[in-house]
Amino acid sequence: MEYSSKLIEEAVNQISRLPGIGKKTALRLVLHLVKEKEESTFSLTEALNKLRSGIRFCVHCHNISDAEVCSICSGVKRDRSVLCVVENANDVLAIENTAQFNGLYHVLGGVISPINGIGPGELKIESLVNRLNHGQSEIKELILALSPTLEGDTTAFYIHKRVKDLPVKVSVIARGVPVGGELEYADEITLGRSITARTLFN
Amino acid sequence: MEYSSKLIEEAVNQISRLPGIGKKTALRLVLHLVKEKEESTFSLTEALNKLRSGIRFCVHCHNISDAEVCSICSGVKRDRSVLCVVENANDVLAIENTAQFNGLYHVLGGVISPINGIGPGELKIESLVNRLNHGQSEIKELILALSPTLEGDTTAFYIHKRVKDLPVKVSVIARGVPVGGELEYADEITLGRSITARTLFN
Repeated sequence: MEYSSKLIEEAVNQISRLPGIGKKTALRLVLHLVKEKEESTFSLTEALNKLRSGIRFCVHCHNISDAEVCSICSGVKRDRSVLCVVENANDVLAIENTAQFNGLYHVLGGVISPINGIGPGELKIESLVNRLNHGQSEIKELILALSPTLEGDTTAFYIHKRVKDLPVKVSVIARGVPVGGELEYADEITLGRSITARTLFN
Repeated sequence: MEYSSKLIEEAVNQISRLPGIGKKTALRLVLHLVKEKEESTFSLTEALNKLRSGIRFCVHCHNISDAEVCSICSGVKRDRSVLCVVENANDVLAIENTAQFNGLYHVLGGVISPINGIGPGELKIESLVNRLNHGQSEIKELILALSPTLEGDTTAFYIHKRVKDLPVKVSVIARGVPVGGELEYADEITLGRSITARTLFN
């Protein structure tokens, strides 16, 4: 597409590099910004600049944080005996929003995926083992909350292998039919697993 | 949703104010920026800042432009006898990309929509009439390329009423079944119109 303005072209190119945003959507966003007041663009770009230069990663759990230690790791009300292992920072947010978990987290930064060149060394697995191996470690249970994919399962197996000799229980989140979903639309593997992994009715 | 970081929260709030982007998409974009190199965020925000402070509107056609007069209005190869009236700058881009039009444009900045409080006074209709009324006006034909909606039709009628005493031909873009579309999926109004407005086979 040819643009009548170099400024528009550059802005569209920059925005369309974001995931899930193509040239057409980028153009729509750019034209929206042009229509709005100048301040609304400036407050957007200021927030992004501040974010990118100010953001840090928690030294313990590697979650995104405003300080050296994130608010979850430094929280006094958190249960320090359970550690939930997740792929990314958005998984932490998702689990926090369920209000069903009060322990600590460990953000791996991805899953093992040889096809994308991601091995255990690229992830925060060594740091996880160190956290468990640490002399004063209070962690009694490790919950693996990884994606139910081949890569997620591979990562779960690898972590299990690395920690199986440590005095820590390893569990995985339940897999089965989603709450509120209709049974007939569930795929066979999920439905089959939900039958073999059935729990007692209470 | 509660975020572990104030910086993330502010960035998500700013991004989710853009049209068609909700909190979840905004969060995904923000986490993408955090993962990428700092420079990629800075070049994005710089492009947006430059755009917003540098963008201008062509004094003739009101299209977005880098200069006082846009590249189309100042183009030496353009046919100055035809004027295509469109709603927004993206319509200009869309028509330019068809390579089927070589005249000039006039960007109204929207369509008449009483429900949204947009009357003829909010649009560049007065400026259009002045362009046609101007002593040295070379414009012989006005093509109305507005959306085929109630608002678009109202705007077309209003413009027609305003210019009908001027020595200028007024036309509207053809409406009918889209090229490449299957006939059975066209709605009845479009299909009906495509029959009444049939053209000779050549």
